[in-house]
Amino acid sequence: MKLASIFLIITAGSIAIFGQSQNAKDKITVDIRALMDKQVAAWNAGDIDGFMDGYWRSDKLVFIGGDRVTRGWQPTLDNYKKGYDSRAKMGVLTFSDIEVNVLSNDAAVVLGSWALAREKDNPHGKFTLTFRKLKEGWRIIMDHTS
Amino acid sequence: MKLASIFLIITAGSIAIFGQSQNAKDKITVDIRALMDKQVAAWNAGDIDGFMDGYWRSDKLVFIGGDRVTRGWQPTLDNYKKGYDSRAKMGVLTFSDIEVNVLSNDAAVVLGSWALAREKDNPHGKFTLTFRKLKEGWRIIMDHTS
Repeated sequence: MKLASIFLIITAGSIAIFGQSQNAKDKITVDIRALMDKQVAAWNAGDIDGFMDGYWRSDKLVFIGGDRVTRGWQPTLDNYKKGYDSRAKMGVLTFSDIEVNVLSNDAAVVLGSWALAREKDNPHGKFTLTFRKLKEGWRIIMDHTS
Repeated sequence: MKLASIFLIITAGSIAIFGQSQNAKDKITVDIRALMDKQVAAWNAGDIDGFMDGYWRSDKLVFIGGDRVTRGWQPTLDNYKKGYDSRAKMGVLTFSDIEVNVLSNDAAVVLGSWALAREKDNPHGKFTLTFRKLKEGWRIIMDHTS
């Protein structure tokens, strides 16, 4: 084993143990913001399935809306489709005040505000999203919306 | 550098990169549950300061209660003391349905239910807590309660 290999292993180990570089964190933040931008674009195109691409496609996905907990990607999609069964109800979605808190090389928690601009009302609130980096990319594994 | 040292570095690096062993996760879960048990005990002894020991003592602590975001340990404590200024208002706190999701060796997200048993009402809801392992131990860095 050459010295260069040993150095690489030590470096990789240290970064993994002691946290990511600022560059790595910035990259994660950009990737997650891009995913959320895609979600908003899909929603505003009336495409709930596209919006749901941001979520972990697993029975273990957890969605907490107020006092109600929904488990699994499909039930979460079903809830969205039931609650927003017309373009008027979907309105125009915006996310704002987004803060990405990188926890490790494959985990982050995101705090933000959501708002729907609709003809008759403007519901809004906060969300905290737990993201993990999976094979398919960064995905929301837990969504707490209030 | 001896082969044993190289092996140790590779092992440590691999664990850090590819996730913790089940034993390590179990230990984290036990530690976090113990902290939350202490919080509940403090609350039910009328000790809000003790309850607040579970939180990161930092201006960067974030508490999301419904649509309201409070930043910082002291303002969060002040809110609790204002909202629960008598033992009657504090009631008896219970946490249930607790699920600890370990994200890395120093980060976890916890989903659970909270309830207050009081003379006149029984408020209840869900929380998601982001924990980090700090020098002082595991602490909540973000609390989303709804």
